[in-house]
Amino acid sequence: MKVTVLSGGVGGARFTRGLLALLAERLPDGAGGTSAQVTVIANTGDDMWLHGVRVCPDLDTLMYTLGGAVHEEQGWGRRDESGRVSADLAAYGLGWEWFTLGDLDLATHLARTELLRDGLPLSAVTQRLAQRWRPGVRLLPMSDQEVETHVELEDGRLIHFEEWWVRHRAGVPARAFVQVGLEHAEPAPGVLDALRQADVVVVPPSNPVVSVGTILAVPGVRDALRDTAAPVVGVSPVVGGAPVRGMADACLAAIGVRTDAAAVARHYGRRAEAGVLDAWLVDTADEGAVPGLRAEGWTAAAAPTLMTDVPATSAIAAEALRLVDRLP
Amino acid sequence: MKVTVLSGGVGGARFTRGLLALLAERLPDGAGGTSAQVTVIANTGDDMWLHGVRVCPDLDTLMYTLGGAVHEEQGWGRRDESGRVSADLAAYGLGWEWFTLGDLDLATHLARTELLRDGLPLSAVTQRLAQRWRPGVRLLPMSDQEVETHVELEDGRLIHFEEWWVRHRAGVPARAFVQVGLEHAEPAPGVLDALRQADVVVVPPSNPVVSVGTILAVPGVRDALRDTAAPVVGVSPVVGGAPVRGMADACLAAIGVRTDAAAVARHYGRRAEAGVLDAWLVDTADEGAVPGLRAEGWTAAAAPTLMTDVPATSAIAAEALRLVDRLP
Repeated sequence: MKVTVLSGGVGGARFTRGLLALLAERLPDGAGGTSAQVTVIANTGDDMWLHGVRVCPDLDTLMYTLGGAVHEEQGWGRRDESGRVSADLAAYGLGWEWFTLGDLDLATHLARTELLRDGLPLSAVTQRLAQRWRPGVRLLPMSDQEVETHVELEDGRLIHFEEWWVRHRAGVPARAFVQVGLEHAEPAPGVLDALRQADVVVVPPSNPVVSVGTILAVPGVRDALRDTAAPVVGVSPVVGGAPVRGMADACLAAIGVRTDAAAVARHYGRRAEAGVLDAWLVDTADEGAVPGLRAEGWTAAAAPTLMTDVPATSAIAAEALRLVDRLP
Repeated sequence: MKVTVLSGGVGGARFTRGLLALLAERLPDGAGGTSAQVTVIANTGDDMWLHGVRVCPDLDTLMYTLGGAVHEEQGWGRRDESGRVSADLAAYGLGWEWFTLGDLDLATHLARTELLRDGLPLSAVTQRLAQRWRPGVRLLPMSDQEVETHVELEDGRLIHFEEWWVRHRAGVPARAFVQVGLEHAEPAPGVLDALRQADVVVVPPSNPVVSVGTILAVPGVRDALRDTAAPVVGVSPVVGGAPVRGMADACLAAIGVRTDAAAVARHYGRRAEAGVLDAWLVDTADEGAVPGLRAEGWTAAAAPTLMTDVPATSAIAAEALRLVDRLP
């Protein structure tokens, strides 16, 4: 069984961890893992060059979470992290002190940067770094080209997404999101095949605008999703009119989409109507949206979607796969 | 009074610290420093790209030593250093684990790399970093271009100097030293003027082959030294037939120069005979070499040259300047 996941950072990583636990139970490989082949296509729009090193927040969150090294409460970064380097770096007064550059995390950035400078594409670098973490999935960046999400502010100024997200806590109104470099980007090797050859494609509760939206913006990805024989099921990142985590509401507002489980589904669109999804799982808090979605032709259901721990997350993945079985 | 120093790492940095203490005493500026203008031209041949960041060992040793932050016993690197990042980086198994990449030191490399990637030349970057350390000298890299010393081994293989020096402890026989990039290098802004406009030029007890030798190899430096009206005085890095510190003997052997205070003087050569020095200070242990050097036309003397502490080093600097006064 081949499962392909389109993932941002924390939400996608946690969902995938639950999915892997579910698959390990249903399709065990005899060694504690699963015989199912899970491919994760990660958003790299949040990546940036910082102090000369390449930072890939979502790839790292996926590696650490699936590799058992993540800072659990925080959801990203390494457990037992420290900030010795960044504290000293701040004394040079170059700015960007608001971006946490942990010591252990920095080791990953340095390893990645060395391999990139050696000429390896990001997909090969990611494979090399993942040898250490053994995430149990094939981890692919959406593209080997640098695509960086920038935020267009009300005054027309463009700032890097991380500056808007981390420094300004998404508190400065955004007019649009621009993927710088997108015109030269193509899907990384394996991305299109992972969509075409999948038995099921899952869109976890990641940010629909700047995480999944950025992956979908890579030329060829949306078409591959539309054309694949695999069913595509999504899990709503919005519960009861608010994002479960993060500030996706500010992203949705910028593109004129209401922070509402049904509105997000409609934003993705049904494949039957040139969209990218077949089925949509909402939280029980949004059960009221299900009849309307069904009336529009969606295969939809409600279930608890809070990823409080791995078993709870496995149950969400199970609900998403159950929804696939209900497809007409 | 303008003093210009041609410096490698530890030896040059310690000597310069003693020189500054001497000048602060003789020519005080009323604020604990000196009114003399000291310019240090630093070897950058040991520089390298490591894990994507630019490491400049000699510039850093100078900054930390003159800025009061050096690891005193070690002679290089930061006091209270730790190795959290490099320990974690080693888990990726990319190699170069033999090169110490301290956490605090890494902050300097990251700051430097960011500024270089922003397009600043190394001389401007160095000035910016030195704002933090206030070394009390004008610190100049020998060149803004990348010149990296490589070691040609007996089998013809070229390895970076740091690999030979740190990893192999200079224990693998070297056939020659090659400055990669030298043909495109020119002296950094200020270097030639610092030599031409100096009242005195000092060559501290740095490695004559790979530190001072590399600075001298930058096109234009040797000519400027030969032509300057300033006297040029050197302090022997060899005491009693052995280098005071480091493995300069292995470097001297590679270029066919005996590890001997007089042989090093002759290797530099007298300015009157197309060399670069006027005067040469040897250690009292090598007092026997003085008459011979004098017979050859050198202004030479012997004095204790072990830089055991700052006062002892000041006394060495005083002896070097006294030698200048004895020039014909």
